Amino acid sequence: ADELFLISGPCVIEDESIMLKTAEKLKEVTERLNIPMIYKASFQKDNRSSVDFYRGPGIEEGLRILQKVKDEFGFSLVSDVHYPDQVKPAAEVLDIIQIPAYLCMQTDLVVGAAETGKVVNIKHGQFLAPENMIKPAQKVESTGNKNIILTERGFTFGYNDMVVDPRSFYEMRKTDYPVVFDVTHSIRKYGIPSADPNGGARQYLGTLARAGVAAGVDGLFIETHPCPSEALCDAASQLDVTQLEEFLKPLIDIHNIELSYRNSPNH
Amino acid sequence: ADELFLISGPCVIEDESIMLKTAEKLKEVTERLNIPMIYKASFQKDNRSSVDFYRGPGIEEGLRILQKVKDEFGFSLVSDVHYPDQVKPAAEVLDIIQIPAYLCMQTDLVVGAAETGKVVNIKHGQFLAPENMIKPAQKVESTGNKNIILTERGFTFGYNDMVVDPRSFYEMRKTDYPVVFDVTHSIRKYGIPSADPNGGARQYLGTLARAGVAAGVDGLFIETHPCPSEALCDAASQLDVTQLEEFLKPLIDIHNIELSYRNSPNH
Amino acid sequence: ADELFLISGPCVIEDESIMLKTAEKLKEVTERLNIPMIYKASFQKDNRSSVDFYRGPGIEEGLRILQKVKDEFGFSLVSDVHYPDQVKPAAEVLDIIQIPAYLCMQTDLVVGAAETGKVVNIKHGQFLAPENMIKPAQKVESTGNKNIILTERGFTFGYNDMVVDPRSFYEMRKTDYPVVFDVTHSIRKYGIPSADPNGGARQYLGTLARAGVAAGVDGLFIETHPCPSEALCDAASQLDVTQLEEFLKPLIDIHNIELSYRNSPNH
Amino acid sequence: ADELFLISGPCVIEDESIMLKTAEKLKEVTERLNIPMIYKASFQKDNRSSVDFYRGPGIEEGLRILQKVKDEFGFSLVSDVHYPDQVKPAAEVLDIIQIPAYLCMQTDLVVGAAETGKVVNIKHGQFLAPENMIKPAQKVESTGNKNIILTERGFTFGYNDMVVDPRSFYEMRKTDYPVVFDVTHSIRKYGIPSADPNGGARQYLGTLARAGVAAGVDGLFIETHPCPSEALCDAASQLDVTQLEEFLKPLIDIHNIELSYRNSPNH
Repeated sequence: ADELFLISGPCVIEDESIMLKTAEKLKEVTERLNIPMIYKASFQKDNRSSVDFYRGPGIEEGLRILQKVKDEFGFSLVSDVHYPDQVKPAAEVLDIIQIPAYLCMQTDLVVGAAETGKVVNIKHGQFLAPENMIKPAQKVESTGNKNIILTERGFTFGYNDMVVDPRSFYEMRKTDYPVVFDVTHSIRKYGIPSADPNGGARQYLGTLARAGVAAGVDGLFIETHPCPSEALCDAASQLDVTQLEEFLKPLIDIHNIELSYRNSPNH
Repeated sequence: ADELFLISGPCVIEDESIMLKTAEKLKEVTERLNIPMIYKASFQKDNRSSVDFYRGPGIEEGLRILQKVKDEFGFSLVSDVHYPDQVKPAAEVLDIIQIPAYLCMQTDLVVGAAETGKVVNIKHGQFLAPENMIKPAQKVESTGNKNIILTERGFTFGYNDMVVDPRSFYEMRKTDYPVVFDVTHSIRKYGIPSADPNGGARQYLGTLARAGVAAGVDGLFIETHPCPSEALCDAASQLDVTQLEEFLKPLIDIHNIELSYRNSPNH
Repeated sequence: ADELFLISGPCVIEDESIMLKTAEKLKEVTERLNIPMIYKASFQKDNRSSVDFYRGPGIEEGLRILQKVKDEFGFSLVSDVHYPDQVKPAAEVLDIIQIPAYLCMQTDLVVGAAETGKVVNIKHGQFLAPENMIKPAQKVESTGNKNIILTERGFTFGYNDMVVDPRSFYEMRKTDYPVVFDVTHSIRKYGIPSADPNGGARQYLGTLARAGVAAGVDGLFIETHPCPSEALCDAASQLDVTQLEEFLKPLIDIHNIELSYRNSPNH
Repeated sequence: ADELFLISGPCVIEDESIMLKTAEKLKEVTERLNIPMIYKASFQKDNRSSVDFYRGPGIEEGLRILQKVKDEFGFSLVSDVHYPDQVKPAAEVLDIIQIPAYLCMQTDLVVGAAETGKVVNIKHGQFLAPENMIKPAQKVESTGNKNIILTERGFTFGYNDMVVDPRSFYEMRKTDYPVVFDVTHSIRKYGIPSADPNGGARQYLGTLARAGVAAGVDGLFIETHPCPSEALCDAASQLDVTQLEEFLKPLIDIHNIELSYRNSPNH
């Protein structure tokens, strides 16, 4: 499909009521905007900077809540895995298995996810030159699975800073797999806990999203929450779900223009 | 004005006939597209990597040719200065005096240019955090001159590579001065002579231009030449002037959308 | 102890004869130089860029060979784990469990390794500001285990390049845990298979090693092989074990000087 | 000569008494340590971030003071030029003409300095890949002048941060010209005025200096002041001249070791 698709939901699975409330709002917005919607939330955050931070409800309870969201709203589901033994139970519920950026080079994990036959969404490692993203994609392909999504989320640029290099979209598009832009994690400020209001540079959200969409993507990844300041993770970078519709409008317009010129020279 | 404006012309001043031929084509294209046009070419390249490379005709002959282009086509003129003693003669012909990126922190040069009362176009130093671009702007302001343009052209990103960080446009726009995106120099590959076909990553031109325009700019800086492969400078990164019109169309469309949302939240 | 200690061995476990031959040579050299020696080789490489590359003999056979090296030469052993279920069997043979750089933020893996009570050697993530290395160290500490080593191996610096920032040693030393410099992986050129002679910038080995030791470390990590050009991994960056002794001499001298000034001001 | 040589003095020329007091102390220290000493201070700072900051006494008064230092203490002199018309008067007093890092690619300035026949000290541009430092050196050579020094002072590494990459010393040494390490400016924090105590990361001085000397240099550049906190420039990064002797001792020891191994393999 040519419509810009959306991957959205709270960063980590919190109380069931919050998950459903967010889903309800996402349903309304994406129906009005007429764009495909995939629901995302993590059942386990394995790379938080402290063992004292909230890590999610775990795989069993997490998948139960995700299934409930799917049953009530009909969304496809995506969530991330960190270890090979999570792949199989995750695949029973999820439509898309996500490989976290730090783990994009871990062969056993990538191949394990691929072997489920599900779509594999590979996040672009913050340390990996964009053209090297073909490498984890080829690991998925080695299993016969060609259902692949590549997701940009910023490259390490000096200490505790991330840059979204528009050339990365160009390089990833050369694979012919759908390319997604995760704008939420691109504004993270490492070294500051993600629950701290200074842990994300929210002011850049619109600028980065427009630039990425104009560079050329097929989907957007934007974490949303009914009340980001109270979110248990990425409080500083999630978007208030009530602001989502206005946020998406210019992006959909820009996407449609970009799409209409894809066959032009020098695109 | 709200139209995206264009700064264009060959990188360095070559034979008069080439300069006029480029100007003629630029006239046609910008009239058809109905966008403002400013003609740019350098009378002296002071930072080429070898003394053996072509440096331009010098200030006197260079300004004579630029004046002729202005007389024939009515364009405003911009060119760059490298030393304070060039500022005064340059101001007699130019409408905009450009400060090269490497020199954006040189007080005597910036202040000298400002004191002419002309518009000063400050290129963003490849080594300067975007928010620090307010510093050279304040040097211009210290003379009472508020006619300032800020131009992005990529930041040093590892050795011999440049990145266009969309956040830079956001930071420079906070000054309220017009912001321009020089896409030509953003694709230069340092360490390779600019006359070498490998000296620029031409494949990224469209992607970067779209991303920059969507991020939010007022003008574009695109060097053009009737035959880039024979250009005496930046042969690898200039755009063939006959391709300019098709190149600009998506950018103008994206600019108009970006403009229409400037007062939205999260822009 | 004040002597510079050495972690060395082939990158990945190959034929038993190669492992023993390397160990024998390492024994000779470190006895002559009178420095402590810890033997390192990987039983599984999980982040090679292709599923077609050699990944090692697996955990069971790999640990058997490592145990044999220990039995014959008396070395302490270190190897790396990638998934929590490898931690327990690994701890039965290894003295030091190593967390790969890409995985330094994976809580379950780090905590799992810590819970064995073994020394945990945490490689510095190529994406992590040096001062943030305290975070994975605190995850180890959270289990009551204070046996920690921190190992520098270069930071992402533009695409496909690694920089060894001397400030990283300063920051890691502030933890008071032993700091090791892995010079072998600091010269890797990503994007080129590690078996390719261009996959590592061998010419920098000496310069980097001297700089790191002078900055202040307690140990060195240098992968060695009897014939690097035939090594099944990191052929371009391993040191020929017959060159090790000459390589270490200036480093030991510099270390002794650095050590003698540790209590000076401005050290 | 094989002794590590020292370039030192206050960053910018201040009151004559301060200049002489610093020189006197530098004389004592370098005689005791038996190392060659070259006196450095700037008569004009052209790239301060505001026109309101102290820029120095200007060329005429500045050269008068430098001459006085030379007359009283017998030091060779180095200072920096920013525009070609400063080269000739500067050469009448100075022994070494320094090209500032931002200006290392400016042909007219570099060639003008070279034509005086004086030694030309080229600072390594914060934006230039180390191997490209051969380019400005070749511009000097094009005049027949082979009296060249290359000085490292850190590379742009993300925004407002500088990294000293030990590989840079290796690359610059390949030219066979003397290589100097300017440790003072390597710890500057851009975006913060240099008179602010947070404008430099003083804690890294020792670590960086040791790393650079071990990597392999011929001289050190360390700005010194009798009271850095009251210095009119680089207050945060200059070294208190009374601390210089203790600071230099480990560096001289490390230099002597590095020197003694220069003909070893893998150096």
